[in-house]
Amino acid sequence: MTVRKFAVTDASFERSPGQDGEVFAANVVDQRHGAPISIGFGRYGPNQSLVETIAVDDVMVVLQEQLSVSAEGSTVTASPGELVHMPKGSEITIRSHDEGAVTAYVTYPHWQDER
Amino acid sequence: MTVRKFAVTDASFERSPGQDGEVFAANVVDQRHGAPISIGFGRYGPNQSLVETIAVDDVMVVLQEQLSVSAEGSTVTASPGELVHMPKGSEITIRSHDEGAVTAYVTYPHWQDER
Repeated sequence: MTVRKFAVTDASFERSPGQDGEVFAANVVDQRHGAPISIGFGRYGPNQSLVETIAVDDVMVVLQEQLSVSAEGSTVTASPGELVHMPKGSEITIRSHDEGAVTAYVTYPHWQDER
Repeated sequence: MTVRKFAVTDASFERSPGQDGEVFAANVVDQRHGAPISIGFGRYGPNQSLVETIAVDDVMVVLQEQLSVSAEGSTVTASPGELVHMPKGSEITIRSHDEGAVTAYVTYPHWQDER
């Protein structure tokens, strides 16, 4: 492996598994590449929600618009340049707003292996 | 641990170890918190360079301005919203430009433990 750069325009989005809303994910580094982490981009349509028990440690960076993440009765809303850390085992709801949102993410270990 | 949000304004920057340039790092999640990953923000003054052999898998997200990363004779330049993956063992040089730069990073495992 060598140093690589990724932009959201490099991403091949697929519908996020386990749901039929307008929530898409695109790994750019994952279990196929020999690194211990998965790296990718996320895209949310307007007013979507994704309910999940996070099976890995997941860091989300908001790149465009805003996302709200609820867990244990409290909610944080992140704007571009802000990070949300969702520790393994968190029961979370991610909600997009009227404008949708674009994110980058890093997970340890690989989220697709742990589903 | 619960879900937490972080902004660059939450960061307490310290000079990046092993160098005396204007390169600063601020962990917001690390070995003190029980998660397997470190999360933080980086700040680079104008025209700084940092030469390092990366001891962990390191993902950098450019939040403001631009950074160039050189490894194995090739260079990538990342702009806001773009990611650079520096695999463990990479011998890299990170260079900021006239405007400096601000980044977010995620490392596995904890970079401070591996130095």
